[in-house]
Order: sequence, then structure tokens, then C-alpha cells
Amino acid sequence: MSTLLFTGNQTFRVEPTAAVPPAPGEVQLQVAYCGVCGTDVHLYHGAMPHRLSLPQVIGHEVSAEIAAIGEGVSGWQVGDRVTVRPLQPGTEDPSDNGQHHIGKNLKFIGIDTPGGMQSHWNVPAHTLHRLPDSLPLTLGAMIEPLAVACHDVRLGRVQAGEYVVVIGGGPIGILIALVARQKGARVLVSEVNAARLELAHSLDLDTVNPSTSDLVAEVERFTSGAMADVVFEVSGVAAGVAAMTQLPRARGRMVMVAIHAEPKPVDLFRVFWRELQLIGVRVYEPEDFEEAIALAESGALPLEELITQVAPLAEAQSVFDAIDRNPAGMKYLLQCS
Amino acid sequence: MSTLLFTGNQTFRVEPTAAVPPAPGEVQLQVAYCGVCGTDVHLYHGAMPHRLSLPQVIGHEVSAEIAAIGEGVSGWQVGDRVTVRPLQPGTEDPSDNGQHHIGKNLKFIGIDTPGGMQSHWNVPAHTLHRLPDSLPLTLGAMIEPLAVACHDVRLGRVQAGEYVVVIGGGPIGILIALVARQKGARVLVSEVNAARLELAHSLDLDTVNPSTSDLVAEVERFTSGAMADVVFEVSGVAAGVAAMTQLPRARGRMVMVAIHAEPKPVDLFRVFWRELQLIGVRVYEPEDFEEAIALAESGALPLEELITQVAPLAEAQSVFDAIDRNPAGMKYLLQCS
Repeated sequence: MSTLLFTGNQTFRVEPTAAVPPAPGEVQLQVAYCGVCGTDVHLYHGAMPHRLSLPQVIGHEVSAEIAAIGEGVSGWQVGDRVTVRPLQPGTEDPSDNGQHHIGKNLKFIGIDTPGGMQSHWNVPAHTLHRLPDSLPLTLGAMIEPLAVACHDVRLGRVQAGEYVVVIGGGPIGILIALVARQKGARVLVSEVNAARLELAHSLDLDTVNPSTSDLVAEVERFTSGAMADVVFEVSGVAAGVAAMTQLPRARGRMVMVAIHAEPKPVDLFRVFWRELQLIGVRVYEPEDFEEAIALAESGALPLEELITQVAPLAEAQSVFDAIDRNPAGMKYLLQCS
Repeated sequence: MSTLLFTGNQTFRVEPTAAVPPAPGEVQLQVAYCGVCGTDVHLYHGAMPHRLSLPQVIGHEVSAEIAAIGEGVSGWQVGDRVTVRPLQPGTEDPSDNGQHHIGKNLKFIGIDTPGGMQSHWNVPAHTLHRLPDSLPLTLGAMIEPLAVACHDVRLGRVQAGEYVVVIGGGPIGILIALVARQKGARVLVSEVNAARLELAHSLDLDTVNPSTSDLVAEVERFTSGAMADVVFEVSGVAAGVAAMTQLPRARGRMVMVAIHAEPKPVDLFRVFWRELQLIGVRVYEPEDFEEAIALAESGALPLEELITQVAPLAEAQSVFDAIDRNPAGMKYLLQCS
């Protein structure tokens, strides 16, 4: 049994651990796999230090089996296969508007509290979602990012037959493209990195490189002049924001998935002129996890092809060190037990 | 019978005119009143010169009686009291998404084609809306801007009991505030100009001056911490855009009413973090005119109090010259016949 501790300064340390019995309302998980999220990479690079208590276990994209059950927990049994929706709502604020998943006092498990990159992990029972027996636990660790994509596509109100442009072909962008395609949308992925374009292409996604093509002209061609019903901004860069407003048709939707730390110029005239809508989206709600699990179980999405590497927890340091150097990398999974 | 010709360089000339018989599909209006829109003032200052054919009649906020009926027009009689929805759809573009009121090839009557600041004006019959006999023709000339407000409130999905903040207390901002209040919303108007604040106050609207108060704190107090369900950005300035994202509660809506000629910085992190929505709105649809007419007829809105001055068409030059110097001014009407 081992625990991966992030000690700051792009450094991890692996320690043996004794599993702690679950507190009331919690379960103890034996973690099978924990995926590396872009947020974990940001933490590794020093982001949000005030939210961490170093040394800290991070990670929140897990598949697991229940190893022990705390007092007062019902509906779960030892051995159940699960994933975790890593949100711990806090005291409700009047400005939360009943949106518990983005509440002002929400804690994100794996950042604000210890995460899943350890063999045994205690989590509140309310965070659990059951994984089907037929779903490999490697794919179970991809439910969390897939739930992000399901949430984004749902709030973007993507319908069958609609034209969708995804700006940014990283893991979340690709998952959004796949979920939107599964809903019957016609999807174009805009990405500047050749390796990521190649991967998107290998998944039979239509692609465009806006650094070598005129993106607006390409979207015009792709949509026969109709332009996009929905644009997902997943790039996080100013060029993505500038492109975002140019691509929708009248009353088209733009979905703000990326985290833009600083305010960026937005063409508000275009928002007015064509009555565009911008929709902010963050994390997920329980139904998004259920949809993600059903989609993964159906086998309709090529999730296996998004797994770049599966490595033992003990090799986490080299995995994190490698991620930045491999822009073609998609999903890295750590085997935790 | 006279015509007001805009000759460029902030200059008007009044000429006598002979009324022209209406072409097929048109009616000839005897214009009673034509309001001065902010857009007319922008034209007067040299905006959008490529859209005008100088010398040109401008103006599009009219009340009128039908003076003659062109070939093929049915459903209207000489003497009918009407207002005009000044939109002439052009060839439909695939990117219009069926939104004829903001179509790519739309012409705006009174800018792209001659306007209503003349005693006799020919317009397509499809632009007409009937005015009730009980509605004074002065108020009939306010239906067009009121329809803008109805459109904005409708697309902002304002519900009874919701908290609404209107950033910018000019004519459109005040009309939005009045329409939202009429729907049962609790409305706060943010405005920096003392004279406009006074006018809003005289209409029993709650107000805040963001240059002397902490706007976020005032909205917190006004909403008992709930923050705004809907924020209307009507100021057109960067400070309004900066404030816009700070005021809504989770999943709150921001309605982009103002024309921002240049891209402006938007706090996209906040859009993401609280799942905010930004909704672009422009002009109106037929139902907005019908709602505006019904509202005006009901007498529920203090429209009379928004009329700053009624002047003869021949005095238009001095009216336009005065508008810039009177920030307390709301609606100026030109009596056209």
C-alpha cells in the first residue's frame, strides 16, 4: 500500500501507508487507477498553492473498489466498483442559486482535500457512482473527465444535426468532440499542434489547423455557409477567444470551458450583432456522471485510444515530468494498487 | 409638407416636399412624431457614413396615420394609426439561422434607406403595427424603443421576483428597467450621471452610483446576498463590462444591449466559475412590438415622463445640437406634420 505525496517544486515522494478506517458517512476505496488531470499538472507547476496542504495527495480521476464502509453508509458493499464525483459542497451561499456543484463554499476533493493518487482513499459516500462490471477499471478512471464533457455538451444544448466547432484538441476538447458527435452533431476540431491533430484525425474527427488555414473560411466550408451552432472554447488562449465569436451563426452558442486566468478581449459587438450566447460551464452534476458511465459502458466512444500510458504509482514523478514534453499525450493513468 | 435632410457634418436642412405615391406593397404615412434615437445622434456625429446616402432623411421611431395605400396592400385603411418596425429583411443567408430580424442582408429603415423625419414617408406595409385609438401619438413614437426593451427583457428571460441590475440609465436602460419592473422583477439601476439618477429616482426606480458607491456591495445589499439574476449591460463602456460579470449569482444571465465598437476585456474566469450566461440582443421581433403597444396602452409605464421635449421638425437642428449638452435628456420627439 502506497501513497504519492506532492511536496511542491514539481516533486513527488512515494511513501508506504497504512489505510485509515473510514469515518462515519465515508467509504474506504482501494483505488485501481487515477488519471492525471490538466489541473494536477498545473498544481505540479505551482498553481493554486494556497489550496494545497503540502505534502499532499492530489488526483481526482479514479476507478476503485470499496474496501471498507463507514458508519451510517447504506446502499454500498465492500467490493463494489465505483468512481468518485470529487465535489464536497460546503455551506450554501445565497448567491449559489441552488447550484451546489459550483457553490461558493464548495471544496474540490483532490485539491482542497486529499486526493486519489494512493492505494487507499477515504471519500464521502455521496460522491460515489457505480461502475458497470463490464467496464474495465482503466476506462473507469476516465469517467470524471468524460463527465466534464457530458456537462459541457449538455449545457451547450447540442442537438443532433448541429454543427459544432471545438477550439482546442486536448483531452477535454477531444472528449467534448466525441460526446457531441455521439449526439449526432457534425464536429470540427480546431487545434494547432500537429500531434494532437493527428490523434483527432485517427478518431475520425474532422480537423482544422488555424495556424495554417483560415479558420472562418474552413468553418464556412464545413457548414456549407451555415456556420456553427455551438462553439466550445477549450484552448484557454486569446486566439481561441478571438475566434470564438467569429464562428457561430445567428443565435449560436459559445461554451466557455477553458480557464482564462486573466480577462481577455471579447468581440462584444459580434455578440450583440448576431445575438450570440456565451455559456459558462464548470465541473459536473450527478446526471453527467451517469451519462458518462452509460456512454463508456456502451462502447460507443473510442476511450481506449485516448490512454497514452498506464504507469505504476511509483513512477508518477517521471510521468509528470514527461507530460509537458509530449503534446500528443492525452490521458496518463497511474495504477494505484 | 416638409422633409428634414441630414447633409453630414452635424447639419440638417429642412425642405418642402411633395409626397410621392406609395409603390406596390407600400403605404404612404403622414408622420405625426419621430423620436430621436441614440443611433440618430451617432449618425449626426459622423458614425456609419458608408450606410448613408447624403443628403438623407434619417429617423425610425415614428407614430403616423396612413395617408395612401399602395397596390397589393391589404388589411390597412387610410387613416389607420400605426407605428413602424423599421426592418427590411434581405436575401436570407445560411448563417441567419432563420433569425430574419438580424439577418446578414437586413436593411435598417432610416439608416440604410430613407427614414421618418419627414411629413410623408413611404414604408413597406409589412413593417406596420396598429396603434390603439386611446394611445396618444406622442407615446406612439416611443413604441420602437420600448420594443427594444421588451425584446431585451424577453431574451434575458426575466421572471417575476427576480433581481435585475441595469448598468446604464439612458433611455434604453430606463425602459428596460421599467419593463422588467412591470414583469415583477426587483430592479436596481446603476448610473454615474446625477441628472439621470434623479430621473430614475423620480420614476421610483432604485438606483446606485458606481462612481461613489461600491457597486458589488450595493447589489449584495439590494439582493440580501443573493446577487443578480439578470444584469443588463447598457452603458457601452469598459467599466460596465467589468462590473457586469461581478454582479450575477451562479447561473445568472448578462444581457449585452450596448454596442461596443471595440473588443473589451471580459472576466471569462468568472463566466466559467459561476456558470454565467451572456446573451446578445439586437433590435426586436414582431411580438416585441405587440408587447410594447399593449404595455403602452395599459398605462402601466410612466412613458410621458420620459419625454424631454417635443419640437417642430423645423427645429431639428437645435434639438440635435442640444442633446449632447443635456445628459438628463431622455426622449426628444420631432413633430413631423
